[in-house]
Parts: sequence; structure tokens; C-alpha cells
Amino acid sequence: MFQLDKIKQKVGRYRIDFEPVGRRGKCDSDKSLLECAHQLGINIKSVCGSQGKCRSCKVNILDGKVSEPTLSEKEIFSSKECDDGWRLACKAYPLSNCKIYLPPESITAPQRTQTEGLEIIILPEPVVNSYKITASPPSLSDLRADAERLLELLNVNNNLSCNSIDIDIIRDSFPKLREWGWTCNALVRKDEVIGLSLSERKLGLAVDLGTTKIAGYLIDLESGKTLAAEGIMNPQISYGEDIISRIARAIQSPDDAAQLKKLVVNSINEMAGGLCLRTGAKPDEIIDAAIVGNTAMHHLLLNLPVKQLAESPFIPAVKNALDIKARDAGLQIAKGAYIHLLSNIAGFVGADHTAALLATDAGKIEGLVLVIDIGTNTEISLVENGEIVCASCASGPAFEGGHIQYGMRASAGAIEDILIINDEIQYQTIGGASPVGICGSGILDALAQLYLAGVIDKGGRMSFDHPRVRPNGKCLEYVLVSEEERNGQEAIVVTQSDIRELQLAKAAIRTGIQLLLEAKWRTEDDITQIIIAGAFGSYINVDSAVASGLLPVLPSDRFKQVGNAAGIGAKMALISSSKRLEAQNLAQRVRYIELSTAPAFMQTFIQAGYLGTYRLYGGKRVEINKE
Amino acid sequence: MFQLDKIKQKVGRYRIDFEPVGRRGKCDSDKSLLECAHQLGINIKSVCGSQGKCRSCKVNILDGKVSEPTLSEKEIFSSKECDDGWRLACKAYPLSNCKIYLPPESITAPQRTQTEGLEIIILPEPVVNSYKITASPPSLSDLRADAERLLELLNVNNNLSCNSIDIDIIRDSFPKLREWGWTCNALVRKDEVIGLSLSERKLGLAVDLGTTKIAGYLIDLESGKTLAAEGIMNPQISYGEDIISRIARAIQSPDDAAQLKKLVVNSINEMAGGLCLRTGAKPDEIIDAAIVGNTAMHHLLLNLPVKQLAESPFIPAVKNALDIKARDAGLQIAKGAYIHLLSNIAGFVGADHTAALLATDAGKIEGLVLVIDIGTNTEISLVENGEIVCASCASGPAFEGGHIQYGMRASAGAIEDILIINDEIQYQTIGGASPVGICGSGILDALAQLYLAGVIDKGGRMSFDHPRVRPNGKCLEYVLVSEEERNGQEAIVVTQSDIRELQLAKAAIRTGIQLLLEAKWRTEDDITQIIIAGAFGSYINVDSAVASGLLPVLPSDRFKQVGNAAGIGAKMALISSSKRLEAQNLAQRVRYIELSTAPAFMQTFIQAGYLGTYRLYGGKRVEINKE
Repeated sequence: MFQLDKIKQKVGRYRIDFEPVGRRGKCDSDKSLLECAHQLGINIKSVCGSQGKCRSCKVNILDGKVSEPTLSEKEIFSSKECDDGWRLACKAYPLSNCKIYLPPESITAPQRTQTEGLEIIILPEPVVNSYKITASPPSLSDLRADAERLLELLNVNNNLSCNSIDIDIIRDSFPKLREWGWTCNALVRKDEVIGLSLSERKLGLAVDLGTTKIAGYLIDLESGKTLAAEGIMNPQISYGEDIISRIARAIQSPDDAAQLKKLVVNSINEMAGGLCLRTGAKPDEIIDAAIVGNTAMHHLLLNLPVKQLAESPFIPAVKNALDIKARDAGLQIAKGAYIHLLSNIAGFVGADHTAALLATDAGKIEGLVLVIDIGTNTEISLVENGEIVCASCASGPAFEGGHIQYGMRASAGAIEDILIINDEIQYQTIGGASPVGICGSGILDALAQLYLAGVIDKGGRMSFDHPRVRPNGKCLEYVLVSEEERNGQEAIVVTQSDIRELQLAKAAIRTGIQLLLEAKWRTEDDITQIIIAGAFGSYINVDSAVASGLLPVLPSDRFKQVGNAAGIGAKMALISSSKRLEAQNLAQRVRYIELSTAPAFMQTFIQAGYLGTYRLYGGKRVEINKE
Repeated sequence: MFQLDKIKQKVGRYRIDFEPVGRRGKCDSDKSLLECAHQLGINIKSVCGSQGKCRSCKVNILDGKVSEPTLSEKEIFSSKECDDGWRLACKAYPLSNCKIYLPPESITAPQRTQTEGLEIIILPEPVVNSYKITASPPSLSDLRADAERLLELLNVNNNLSCNSIDIDIIRDSFPKLREWGWTCNALVRKDEVIGLSLSERKLGLAVDLGTTKIAGYLIDLESGKTLAAEGIMNPQISYGEDIISRIARAIQSPDDAAQLKKLVVNSINEMAGGLCLRTGAKPDEIIDAAIVGNTAMHHLLLNLPVKQLAESPFIPAVKNALDIKARDAGLQIAKGAYIHLLSNIAGFVGADHTAALLATDAGKIEGLVLVIDIGTNTEISLVENGEIVCASCASGPAFEGGHIQYGMRASAGAIEDILIINDEIQYQTIGGASPVGICGSGILDALAQLYLAGVIDKGGRMSFDHPRVRPNGKCLEYVLVSEEERNGQEAIVVTQSDIRELQLAKAAIRTGIQLLLEAKWRTEDDITQIIIAGAFGSYINVDSAVASGLLPVLPSDRFKQVGNAAGIGAKMALISSSKRLEAQNLAQRVRYIELSTAPAFMQTFIQAGYLGTYRLYGGKRVEINKE
């Protein structure tokens, strides 16, 4: 209480940033972190009712100063946990601007993470195959060594040419072989025996390693079926929300680089453990894995050099697909198993885009097809007759809620859908909860609806002349949910600078599309299909995308939202060796275009910032009316 | 002082076993370990003159109880060192039977370890080759990833088909590549780039990993020349002198197995470091390694299962040659480098014998040739027209000084050479020091000379009727160096039971030779050459070996002592890929014969125990007189 009294004497007002939900706001220092969170609409659990008697509201202080730990916290947390920054949100008070990490178990409504996506049925051709063997035990008249005994049997009976057995399998499974009476299943990958097991199950793990989210799929390698899927937050977020800040940390300190690797590896291991638990399997039944991610995530996972990724000309250390022992990457699946990392395309176009191209069958598709995955970094490929040109656009975090005053990630209470009819606002929140902020799809809706309602003009300038527009300092803001509608809490608004941020983001993407078309001497009209992949893309309202000028005007049947195509691609590569080959070929076939050096870049970028429906031709804009 | 007084009240007499010299004897508990050692003739350093002021006499207590550490020891050693059993020999007094480890730096005269051997000049065909590369740096018009940039350049310029780069090289050397201006040497092994380096030196490490000794050779891979050689004791000796006791420890506890591995890996690393220091090189310039050892040493080095090695039918986990990343085995040589472990032949015939066969050119040799490596376990191969039959004899440690009352290893003061002329004994010690005990070659001489002098009969029975023979309890003993000759110290004697121990050892070996001959329907007369390999074999007097009946009677020019053939074989495999292939072929061609199951075994064994010169035919013994 002494602590609390002392703090109360000089109440400050600090900016508190709650991660990974991405919701931030000003809070008073006489409010506990729990109260701050609730004030911002984030539902942290509080089982004991803020008495400091349970761990349910535990949070981690990533940055900034908070009050000293109370006695009850010292009882609840080990000294290591205390050193690591764990606190009870109900007992910790901010003493400066803070960044707070909320572990999943402390939040009442889990964040929406994307694991679903169009299922594509392909013929399983697993890279790891299983063979039942029964060897004759050694005797004085048959003195062959264990390894050679197995290899000879396996090769002769199955017409194989295995020539090695993983050293860890020799170490750990050979003694078991005797317990098993020399009968078991041998797991063979190419010419190597990577496992000996009694289990009949052959499971695989596909991972889409995103900057913000990690999606994992537990797959039956024989049927190709998805047994369980899970999406979790990428814990590296505590080291920076975007790729560049994480790379900066990794460059700055090898310890940080190691820690970034460890965080994500631990998460994947936990996720794999969880997926197994749900299906009654064991992690050591996972005998193969395929991983996709952007180039930075790929490099950070393997602790590869990243400095050159962050400096022009933005070069990956490795582009081609990699197969490495899971244990060498730190993944706890079957001993001897490999992980397959799909091929990257360029410094800012990673294996996730390769996987998306694979999932959308880009190598064989007919017509002029645009495959687009919108994120902090937006990858766009233009495909025609198997030829692929690709670009990367620095679209920034605006569409993921970053740099937007009330932006937040897709968690409970996020406004995801907005419609303005006659100055009447209709909105929908995730989980039907009270509105807390605006997530990506809601932000795009806001941009389109504010334009269509005449609140902003095609240049993006907010008009004073609207009942819900009001000044805020030197700026204007549009009140989406008023103080009254939030029962006295701060209004949720869209500011003039939010609009500018969104215009920059959409201009980057539209410019990418345009320059790719021009590289192939084609125009927007020629596009036969726009495949929108990725988490954000699968939730957006395509009408808003077109109305705001993010995407070109085309008949609505030419748009296809395919969900997490990168995840599907990872699954395909997991279950089929031909698909791995196809993915490698696709990546090699892609011609990457560096947009920033294109002569028409600036001219196009300026035009592409405009809202509304128009065509772009050679850096010029022609308005069209969309019905 | 208090401690010391307390001990002095009840003086005990304990058996102190000093390792790795292998010298043991009874000592009084009022003598410090330093005094005990000196009493047994072992020269432990004592720079400060037993004042407890320096670390020069430090020893490690492996087993048994000694007095509590004194204050001066607590000052000299860290608490971790104290916990690990480090003591000053001058300040520690035995309180029970003890086993004491003497680190090399505490002994004044180093133990003789075998690194020399017949040099065979072969054409170097290194497995790792070096290519000078100068890549064009990445630019906006050349966005290839680092890995693909290197691989393409390397393959095109040198007509190679490299397809991968070691992940540690990507991790550690790619950032350097930029510092180096994209110019360096690429080290290529098969289709893999295993190193990038500015060093022009290409070094290799060959290791002969013996149960007692480890011999290491630093080789220039381009010239094939040996730059430096070193022999050290195998530190696993603290876990048991022979293979079986070490295997028992490894089976009993996985921690012990891990520790056994760690001990030997650390020693090899230190040895490699020392060899590099002597030649001005760095361990990361060692880009390849070849290792030979008996099957148990091979398995313990890799922490492979050993239980089945110790139980009939004595099966290795792996027989064929292995290539594994040095780092996976814990060896600190160049990142990305491999170690090549030559093929084993059977549970008790390891890669060291394969290497010996390689070094003696057994695949191509003419005539009927016996290749024999005498040790605790003696490996014998009979070679004719490229056909090889091989056996392993459990000859025991007698010829290495084990189970022999005054037996010791080949260190300073060991009697290595004995001649008895008219009851006059002439002997020679290693380093010309005062006699301390008898090492292997001396023991064999003693056996032959005592037989020739009529002190023992051909059955091995010691005759009372000799001035130097005297009773000792129920037994007889022959005084080799009397109390007077040792200035009042205990006499050095050869006992009746020593003779019995040696007869068993020699019978095992002679039986092996005989049964191999019979397996090929040949007799001793047909042997055109006996190649004696190994440390013991290179120091023995062949006349003693024949006179005692250890080896058959043949003209002396048919005997060839080749030194450490295993070490030479390791070197050959290190510098030449064809020799690796040849070694693998040799090992596969060997027909291993399990002696203990041969019908004539017992009959032959009994006859082979006799001393003197004779022929064996089908379990019968025919005396011959050797001129």
C-alpha cells in the first residue's frame, strides 16, 4: 500500500502499448495495468478479482518502468520470473510509457489467427516413407553389425538403396530394436533411415511463419488430411512489430539474434505439442515438416545473417529450398526428421509467397492472373502462361492496425466491418463485443465508406462539413464510436493522419500492381483474375478495396479470396515431393522486379494515392464510374 | 597440521594406484601422495618443495579417501577444482586404497606414447578441395542471394556440381564475405561447400584412438606431409583401464557414457590445439579429419550403444565407415568440416585394424601374410591373394603391464629390455632412470629369458633351484632388481602368477594365429611374412617373442615391425579419397572368425600355453630347436 500511496501523490499519464493485441492508449499512473487494459477494452483475466492471489492476470513488462513488485507478487512468482519481468497486471502501476506483453492465457478472448484456407486435394507423395521390417537377430553365425543388418534387409526387401542411418537413431533406437524383437517400422527419406518406430502413424507439420502470426497444421502424411490446425502470435513481436525492427535487434546483438530464434522455435515446439495433444499423438510421431515464411522470418528462424536483408539491394543469404535436420534448427519432432524450408524469391519476397504461388497453381493457371498477399509487406505476382513477374511493396502496417490511432489486431472487440448509410454508421465487432478499436478489414471499410459518404475527398482530405467530423488539435477526426456510445470512454475515431497513412499503404500496393502490368506491357483491363491471399486479404470487403482504389476496378467474379494460401502451400509441400520440386521451380522461374528503381515509380505512386475508382495508364489516372 | 597429527595416530598401509602410468603399490598413510609416488619411483614435480605453495604436484583423486584439503590447497584451488577432486600430492594423505590421476603437467618425464611409424608416401587426393573465388557483389541489377551467387560462380568456373553450403558457413562466413570483398577460398567436399576462408593452408587431423593412448597427426593435405605428431594418454582410463570396464560404466549410466565421450573429445580437441600451436596454425584451418580406433573406442567417441558389444555375439552398432560433421561429434576443427571414421570389422576388431591392413597394403600383398597388433585385445589377420581372415584374441592386459605385480606402462624408469647371461641380469630402463617397474617389452623379455635361463620350465613352473628365486607366501618369485640394488626399496620381482598371466596371454595370441592358419588349411611354415603392428609390437624383441612361443619359429627376415600402422592407415585415409574407398573395401572383404566357437580352440589353447619353440599342428605340439 505504501508503494501505491507514493505513486498516487503524483499521477502521470503514460502511453501503454499492449502486445500482441496491438492496442495502445494513454492511461493514468494511478490505474493498475489491469485497469488500463480494461479501459482500452482489452479483456485481461482476473480470476481473484484483483486481489493478487492468482496468476491469471500475469503480464510481462517488455519496456518502460512500472511500480516495484508487491509482496504478493514475490510470493506468486519465482525470483527468475520476477527477473524476467513477469508481474500481476492488477498489482503493477505504470511509471513511464510502457510496452506490455499479454500471454495468451491471460486474455479472455483469444485473438483471431488465420489457419483456415481453401483445402486443395492432392495426391500424397510423402518424402518420408515407412517400411515394416523384421530382422533376424545377430548370432555367432551372423555377426553383421546392427546398421548393416537393417540396411541390407531394408534394401533387399523393398528394392531401396539406403546407405546411411541417422546417428541419433543409431544412438537411441538401436537398443530398443532388441526390446522390440527386431520388428519395427523403418522411416526412410531418400537414401537415409531417419527413424525406427513402432508407431503406425506418420504425421507431418506444416508451418506458416508470419511476422505477426504463426499458423501450424498437423497433417496425416498418408491421407494428406489436416488433423488439427492452430494459429498463435509470433512471440518475436516483443522485439519489434515489424521485420525491420527485429532485423535491427538481430544485427545489434548476437544474443538478441539467438533469442529471436529461440522464441519462435519454442513457440513452434509448443504449438506442435498442442496439436499433438488434441489428436492423441506424440511430437516424435511428426516425421517431416515444411516451413514457409517471409525471407526475414526464414533467416531469423535459422539464425542466418540478416544485415544484408535490411540494406539495399536487400539480398537473402539463401534463396533455394533448404533441408536440414529438425534438431539442428531446434525443433522437437521425431529424432532424425528433417524440416523442409521452401525457396525464397527475394529479400522481401519469401517462401510464403512461393507457397502461395504453389497453392494457387500459378505455374499452370490460364489467363493473366494477379496473386497478391497484403501485409506490412505486400507481395504481388503477375502470372501469365507460366511466366511470373513479382514485386514487393512496402505497404506498411496501416492495414494491420499499425500507425492508426485506434488500429488494433483482429481480437475481440475489434471493429471489422463498417457501413455508412446516410450518416448512419453500422459496424460489427469481432465476437460481438463492445468496440475497442479497428482492425484491418474495418480500417479498409472506413477508408472506402468515408470516401463514398463524402467525408473525405478523392485526395483524402477530410471535410469539416460533416456532423461527425470534429477538430482534434491541429487535425480533424471522424467519430466512429462516440464517447456516449462508449459510455463515457474515449471515442473511437478515424483521424486525418490515419487517412494519410492508409493512402500511402494503398498507393504502394496499387503502384506495385501497375508497374508489374507495365513490365509485361499489359493493362488492368487484361487481368482475368485477382487472387487475394493472406490473413488480411481473406477478411477484407473486396468492394471496399475497389471503392478506395486499393485494387483496380474489375467485375467482382474476377476476385478470389483464398485465405491462407501460404499455409496451404506449406501443406502441399509437406505431403508431396513433387510439390516441393514444383515450388522450387516456381521460385526459380519468378522474375523479381525492384519497384523503387522503375522510372515510372514516383509518378505512378502519386496517382495511386487517390481514392475512388480509376484506371492507371503510364503514370496517368483516368476516373471511371463503378456500378 | 591438526589433520596430519590425527592421521599419524593410526598409520595404515594402503594400495595406491597411480594412473595413467599404471604403477601401483602399498604405501603408508603417514606418507603424502607425493612421497608415495616417489617411493614407487614415479617422478611427480614438486617445484616449491612440498610447501603447498605451487600447483606443480596437483593430482586428481579418482577413487578412495584422502585427508581433508588443507588451507593452502583451498587457496590454490577454486572451489570447483576442490569439488572435482583436485589436490596437491604434497598435502594429501591416503586414508584408504586410492586411485590417483596424474595429469601430464605434474609428471617430470612424460610417458612414451607411440606416434612414429613407417611413413608411406602416397599421392594426396584430399576429400576436401579448395577453390579461389572472386564474386561480383550484389547490386540492384544482380539480386541473386549470397548462396546461389557463390554456388553458380564455383560450379561454372570449376566445372563442379555443388548444391549446398553448410548452414554454419552461411551463418558465420557470409557476413565476412562482404568484409573480404567477395574474394576467398571455397572449401568443397563432394557437392557441399564446407568452408569459406582466407587461409591458404589446408590441414587435416589423423587420430588413432587407442584404449590407452591417443596418437594425433597434423597433416598438410596438399603435400601429405606430417607437420606434427603427438601422443597422449586416453583420459577414459580413469573410468577403467580396459574396454570392458568402460563399456560397463557406459551401460550403467547415460551420464557416464556422455562423460566418457566428453573426456576423449576434449582430449582430441586439446591435442589438435597443441599440434596447431606447434606449427603456427589454427584449429579452424583443420578442414578434414580421419579417426581410427577399436570398435569400443569408436562407439564411445560417438556415444553409440555399447551394451551389445559386451555380450555374445559381440555385435557393433555400426560397421561401415561414417562421415559426420565434426561439430556433431564435438570436435573443434573448421566449422562445416567432417570427420571420417574408418570402417570397423567386428565387435572386437575395429577401424584401427582396418587402418593397419590399409597401411600394410594387405589388399595387394603377395604370399601368406600375418598382420598382428598385440594389445589387451590382439587383432590378427591372415592375408593371401587379397583374401583376409581375421580373429580377435582376448590376450588381456598382461603385455601392457596389467595384472603383473611390477608391471607398468612405458614411462621413465620402466624396464624395457632384459638379458640373463649366466645368472647375470642386464636390463635397460626407459630414459635410463632408476628402475621402477617393468613395461610390456621387458615383460616379454623376462618370460623368454627366464625360460632360456632355466628358471621356469616349458610348462611355466618356476624352479626353487635358482639363486634369485625365493618364496613369497605360498608362491615363488624371481628377483629382477633386489632391495639392495634399489637402495632398500622393495625389490622388483617376477612372480609365478605373473608367469601364469603371461602364459594365458601368449596362448590366446598363438591360438589365434594357429586357428586362422587352419581355417585356410595352411601351417606356420607357409607364412611368408609376419607384420607386427602397434605400440607394443614395435618395441618388443622378436627373439623373445619366438623364444617364449608367443610367435611361431620362422627365419628372422620374415618378421617386420611396422610401428603404429593404425596411425599410418588413418593418415592415408585422411589424405586420400581412394584410400578411404580401399579401406572400406578391405573391411568388407575381411572374413571374421569367432575363435571361441572353433572346435579345436581348447586343445590348441592348452598347447599354445607352453613356452619354447615348437610347431602346432591340429592341436598338437612338436618341439623344434631354434638356432
